[in-house]
Amino acid sequence: MTIANQMLELATAAKNASRQVANLSSAVKNELLLSMAAALEKSEVLLQQENEKDLSCARNNGMADAMVDRLTLTSERITGMADGLREVAALPDPVGEVTGMWLRPNGIQVGRQRIPLGVIGIIYESRPNVTADAAGLCLKSGNAVILRGGSEAIHSNRAIGEILQQELGKAGLPQAALQVVTTSDRSAVTELLKLEDQIDLIIPRGGEGLIRFVSENSRIPVIKHYKGVCHTYVDAAADLKMAEDICLNAKVQRPGVCNAMETLLIHADIAATFLPQIASAMKKAGVELRGCENACAIVGGLIPATEDDWAAEYLELILAVRIVESYEQAREHIETYGSLHTEVIVTNDYLLSQRFLREINSSVVMVNASSRFSDGNQLGLGAEIGISTTKLHSFGPMGLEDLTTRKFVVLGAGQVRG
Amino acid sequence: MTIANQMLELATAAKNASRQVANLSSAVKNELLLSMAAALEKSEVLLQQENEKDLSCARNNGMADAMVDRLTLTSERITGMADGLREVAALPDPVGEVTGMWLRPNGIQVGRQRIPLGVIGIIYESRPNVTADAAGLCLKSGNAVILRGGSEAIHSNRAIGEILQQELGKAGLPQAALQVVTTSDRSAVTELLKLEDQIDLIIPRGGEGLIRFVSENSRIPVIKHYKGVCHTYVDAAADLKMAEDICLNAKVQRPGVCNAMETLLIHADIAATFLPQIASAMKKAGVELRGCENACAIVGGLIPATEDDWAAEYLELILAVRIVESYEQAREHIETYGSLHTEVIVTNDYLLSQRFLREINSSVVMVNASSRFSDGNQLGLGAEIGISTTKLHSFGPMGLEDLTTRKFVVLGAGQVRG
Repeated sequence: MTIANQMLELATAAKNASRQVANLSSAVKNELLLSMAAALEKSEVLLQQENEKDLSCARNNGMADAMVDRLTLTSERITGMADGLREVAALPDPVGEVTGMWLRPNGIQVGRQRIPLGVIGIIYESRPNVTADAAGLCLKSGNAVILRGGSEAIHSNRAIGEILQQELGKAGLPQAALQVVTTSDRSAVTELLKLEDQIDLIIPRGGEGLIRFVSENSRIPVIKHYKGVCHTYVDAAADLKMAEDICLNAKVQRPGVCNAMETLLIHADIAATFLPQIASAMKKAGVELRGCENACAIVGGLIPATEDDWAAEYLELILAVRIVESYEQAREHIETYGSLHTEVIVTNDYLLSQRFLREINSSVVMVNASSRFSDGNQLGLGAEIGISTTKLHSFGPMGLEDLTTRKFVVLGAGQVRG
Repeated sequence: MTIANQMLELATAAKNASRQVANLSSAVKNELLLSMAAALEKSEVLLQQENEKDLSCARNNGMADAMVDRLTLTSERITGMADGLREVAALPDPVGEVTGMWLRPNGIQVGRQRIPLGVIGIIYESRPNVTADAAGLCLKSGNAVILRGGSEAIHSNRAIGEILQQELGKAGLPQAALQVVTTSDRSAVTELLKLEDQIDLIIPRGGEGLIRFVSENSRIPVIKHYKGVCHTYVDAAADLKMAEDICLNAKVQRPGVCNAMETLLIHADIAATFLPQIASAMKKAGVELRGCENACAIVGGLIPATEDDWAAEYLELILAVRIVESYEQAREHIETYGSLHTEVIVTNDYLLSQRFLREINSSVVMVNASSRFSDGNQLGLGAEIGISTTKLHSFGPMGLEDLTTRKFVVLGAGQVRG
């Protein structure tokens, strides 16, 4: 069978299974996730055996240590996957919720009800725990899921998939509701991306190269985020101690993630005080500062920032710093160089905080809080399936609700249109 | 300048203008739409002169009379465009609405606020009134809009666009917030569809060929609907007089539109009574019936339906009729042949009505009402920008709210992540 036919068969089976999954009660879905969690923990030996095949292959190919580490299924990480499934089981089920129900003049009642999307394809790299995490979120929201991990994790992903599938089988549910694509043929992804009649949504998770490839080759809607160039603007009316705490946390607490601060904008009126203060704190934390001309004039030893620095997603202990003459200039900077991810203002000026919240249309806008809160768990969505920096369907961190859509329900008593 | 550069310049101007439009107050937007409405009515002579250029060209090219009619800007239609803008002005503004605001354990408050999408591209055919209708909806929802109509309406669309742009200018707003692409070069569409950094959403309106072309060539998210194969299922527990009224209305009141009924499913238990009744009523209304084998056995003179009939969107006075043994068989039929548009059950069985509403995941599901209600106006959305039968972002008829997205707003008091 060709890869194209294999993928069509797999996706058709997923679509058929999705109809059954869409109508499962919350209780059945929750029990399923709990049994999957237990099964993962029980299969630790098997999982680590299969994982070892990926690891030895990775070592033979000279994979970098950091990457090998991400690939490794330690006992703790297996427990982490299981706990992740238990957390999703504990979340409220979005399916079935009716948002609004109104009466039309002719007496028909109209409401909108949440339903699953159908079949979701996840295309990801490296970390095998994504297999269990994404499967749990998709199933809880009533969707069938097709998982395509990287070839470097193929044995681990296959093993996780089989363990989860067995639990579907034991519960009398179609195993095609959760399928792992295990062929190493790279054309599998390209073929999947053509199946717009079977698959409703594609979520790529990984580096910018993967995301661009998926986005450019998909006929199916894609939810994506390329990068996070998050700004913190410290206003003239900021509490400078609060500003220091927020900036340090946003840059240093976990620099390698998309919601870490990459550029600090400081109002000129407080730059002479705040810049030396934050520069000293950042230096102590091991952060390299790259400043605009005015910043370099205030604090000695800064590296002059270039145009590239304003657009950079460093993902490490480097921070671009620019002094701005006004809120308007800060806004313009964010609109020019931002990635629509997360922007923060630190200020005690009420009217200005309102303007910032209203005028900056990134996916998350914050007043007086660290950009590190910009993830689904921290914002209260429960678990997170990903983040969208494109505006269609979802914008920002995505939870269970973002894996659903709404249909119209109409209750009549024989009405016809005049 | 190449077409690619022209389109990039136009889309960049739209993106810049969109920032200003996004922050206009409802009052300013409403005044703008009202002044646009008045300007269209004042320009009737000019509009009809320009329209005449399109019409004479169409006649010279041998365009069918029905198409020429759709292209014609009568005095009544110009008033209709103006009234459409006034209706949109009267609708509530979705921008700024905060849906939910919750407190996290650490004291940050998190909410989701509606914002415009940014820049919307509308690609359409034939009827020039779409230019004003779509522009009104996009501007009211705070978006900039790029309009690309068919070459057959190029003079009419340009004239409408210029009149509307003048009102933007008079109000001190950027004219680039509303732009009509008037080059006859067909590559303009292909170039626009590449501009994912400038344009946030594409809505194609027209025949299936246009929609497929846009969908397959766009890097920008596309909201689309290919066809409407709407079903009415008359259950064994239906009130047969109500069923007759609903079926007749759904098929006959306006057969050429996507929410008209195309297939009638009848429960076997009432087929011997209801099929002759509805067949007689449909015959009187000039409808040709194509029946399954069992239907043909009950009523003489039916045309036997083929497999193609079950998937057909006739858009004329033809109706496919199938007798089903059970609700389950009706459901299976709808899942196999449906287009996810609108499905109706006629029944007085409460539990079955609930199952139908829950289990059928088309964009609109109805109990005891005509499928003809499946449009934005009838469902209470106000004006309609289109309908989506794909599930991402919006599913079903789309109003102003569907031209917005939601950002997260976070209110803190200095919180950092631990």
